[in-house]
Amino acid sequence: MANKSFGRGVAVVGAGMSKFGAFPGMSTRDLFVQAFQEMRASVDKGLDPNDIETLYIGNAASELFEGQGHTAPLMADWVGLTPRPSTRVEDACASGGVAFRQGIMAVASGMYDIVLVGGIEKMTDLPTAEVTDKLATASDLQYEIPAGFTFPGFYAAMATAYMHQYGAVPEAFMKVGIKNHENGALNDKAQFGSTIRKVMDGKVAKAQSRGYPVPEWADELDFLHDERANPVISWPMRLFDCSPISDGAAALLIVAEELAENFTEDPLYVIGSGQASDAALHDRASLTTLRSAKEASRQAYEMAGVQPDDIKLAEVHDCFTIAEVIATEDLDFFAPGEGHAAAEEGLTARHGPKPINTSGGLKSKGHPVGASGAGQVVEIWKQLRGAAGDRQVPGEPELGLTHNVGGTGQTCAVHIFERR
Amino acid sequence: MANKSFGRGVAVVGAGMSKFGAFPGMSTRDLFVQAFQEMRASVDKGLDPNDIETLYIGNAASELFEGQGHTAPLMADWVGLTPRPSTRVEDACASGGVAFRQGIMAVASGMYDIVLVGGIEKMTDLPTAEVTDKLATASDLQYEIPAGFTFPGFYAAMATAYMHQYGAVPEAFMKVGIKNHENGALNDKAQFGSTIRKVMDGKVAKAQSRGYPVPEWADELDFLHDERANPVISWPMRLFDCSPISDGAAALLIVAEELAENFTEDPLYVIGSGQASDAALHDRASLTTLRSAKEASRQAYEMAGVQPDDIKLAEVHDCFTIAEVIATEDLDFFAPGEGHAAAEEGLTARHGPKPINTSGGLKSKGHPVGASGAGQVVEIWKQLRGAAGDRQVPGEPELGLTHNVGGTGQTCAVHIFERR
Repeated sequence: MANKSFGRGVAVVGAGMSKFGAFPGMSTRDLFVQAFQEMRASVDKGLDPNDIETLYIGNAASELFEGQGHTAPLMADWVGLTPRPSTRVEDACASGGVAFRQGIMAVASGMYDIVLVGGIEKMTDLPTAEVTDKLATASDLQYEIPAGFTFPGFYAAMATAYMHQYGAVPEAFMKVGIKNHENGALNDKAQFGSTIRKVMDGKVAKAQSRGYPVPEWADELDFLHDERANPVISWPMRLFDCSPISDGAAALLIVAEELAENFTEDPLYVIGSGQASDAALHDRASLTTLRSAKEASRQAYEMAGVQPDDIKLAEVHDCFTIAEVIATEDLDFFAPGEGHAAAEEGLTARHGPKPINTSGGLKSKGHPVGASGAGQVVEIWKQLRGAAGDRQVPGEPELGLTHNVGGTGQTCAVHIFERR
Repeated sequence: MANKSFGRGVAVVGAGMSKFGAFPGMSTRDLFVQAFQEMRASVDKGLDPNDIETLYIGNAASELFEGQGHTAPLMADWVGLTPRPSTRVEDACASGGVAFRQGIMAVASGMYDIVLVGGIEKMTDLPTAEVTDKLATASDLQYEIPAGFTFPGFYAAMATAYMHQYGAVPEAFMKVGIKNHENGALNDKAQFGSTIRKVMDGKVAKAQSRGYPVPEWADELDFLHDERANPVISWPMRLFDCSPISDGAAALLIVAEELAENFTEDPLYVIGSGQASDAALHDRASLTTLRSAKEASRQAYEMAGVQPDDIKLAEVHDCFTIAEVIATEDLDFFAPGEGHAAAEEGLTARHGPKPINTSGGLKSKGHPVGASGAGQVVEIWKQLRGAAGDRQVPGEPELGLTHNVGGTGQTCAVHIFERR
């Protein structure tokens, strides 16, 4: 397919999110109001909400998780934006990224100048096993669910195929989890804002205080090999390879480029956008790469006119640790089969040459599925504007990327952002 | 809000649909393939599917009705369009109309030239009461469902308010049902392709053949007053005031105006588009008008530069007969409080001055919720091109309108089409 570009430049001028986590008694509307208020406060020159013309809401499955469908006009109502058009976009866990892309198109089309993009999900009202079953509706009902697969199984199949093909070891995946928890520990919005080292120390202290046998772990990898501390969910994916079940919301304000200076002297320009689809996992030529991610990133790089090496940092879709390894290859940050070694060697660490998931990623920050893609943009917003605090990557980065996957890769949306 | 217009003209150059009805053993993907094939055959100069660049799929709740989420890339796969971007749009029963609007924006944005819009729903696998409960997720979980409301109750509340405010009688609603069944009887895609007269005759014949007491009904209104033949569902809405539970799909091909002649000498131009949101029913100033419909139609009329009187025919969202009466007022076809008399007097009949729902509407054609908005466009496509067969409205109509409602009106999408 040809290289496509927008008819009109688009900029992000505000970004906010709720804390991600488990919040009993709060619904998507409460979380979205929090995200909206933080977004509003982030607009340097202020925002009159009445200037917002339309909304796009990324939401994977509120009808399954909390019994509330038709969420888009409800979100508009709760932030005082009735009767503006409000559209819910769903592409499973890529809903947030795809909603962001629709918001961009709404501006590029000339129909709207000022657009609010939201991502929402409330998952923790149900027992974990039930949530896992409901998430499985994002795979293929006819060919995959009858075989007993849920998402840990899908990604475990990708992981074993990857290990077989490239000689990777589970420790490479563990290193991804360790890194993301180290980043998430510096993010006050993260669901699990603890390093794995801190989790270990906590378990030791708890055992001591209760007079239990004190576990002896030399380091994080030692801890992650402990079957009781880090049980296998679907081999080789263990507990600390899997992103959690989460509640959360994020909100982004995007405007036509020529209006950006009305809101801030420091906007992020959206210079690349790509989206692609794929067949379900059972019907693919390879389990170790996502065609949708390769195609979406190709589109985004071409539109932006930049190379993978130009990207300073990225938020990628680490629903499982194997997914991050594959993502860094699909995005051409590393050659096929080299992503696992890159993770082991620390190349994707916050102070490495290619920082990945400085927010903590889905693994540590949390994964309220419809909100995750919008949440990724919040992190790039902070990092490129030099406002990421203790987890700020050095060197005044100018180019950042988001990579948001739905299902096992039936959808992928990639965006590239520039600070000028 | 200001009058908005597209940056680029858009035309419909192909339209098709599956039959609407109850199809055990068929899933949304099967129905969508049928709609896609009919759409393809409808393109006068032929369509190479490989030229399609992206898909928008209107789908209200496949995750609830058939356990399949993430439907958009699946539909792309089943019509051979992987890896093209495929986005599911949900605004309850307005999903099809809103997906159509997103497809328009994708073209208007300059990102795409050739876009496939689909609408899909498969509802009949579950018992009726369960479907009714699942549909209720499109209302407000916190404030309406706990009060015991499902959709027949919501629309009954609107009907009683309307009767109180304007002195309407239930017979006016019955006339809407009689008209729509007369139209649907001429539509081979309709779920209930029978006039109410034919239903009566069938019941009489059945009673005679089995030796039961033969019912005596003088006319349709007589039949519709019979509590056994036409029981109250939620007063004053009876069985023949309610649209059915349906399976079905529709597909539309939309392209940039300058490319239309590559596909047909006889395109439909999309000259107006509007969408608006509203609070849930419990929180509105009036039960007898939809603010979202008034706002969406205002936008569409302004963009098109036409008046309500200029519209020759319309497909409106008659999920219940009261909804059609209110729609004809919200669209300014009739003054507030005069829609019921217009229906009683036959002004909206096929040969009347303002034909409404010549397809049979949701009432007779069927209401596979996510497909209904796209199905409305199929009817306007046929009517404006003079290809509606026995139900063709006379006089070579040039302007047609679609009005697609989500929930009780939390969403409305309105489109205006022109044949030049």
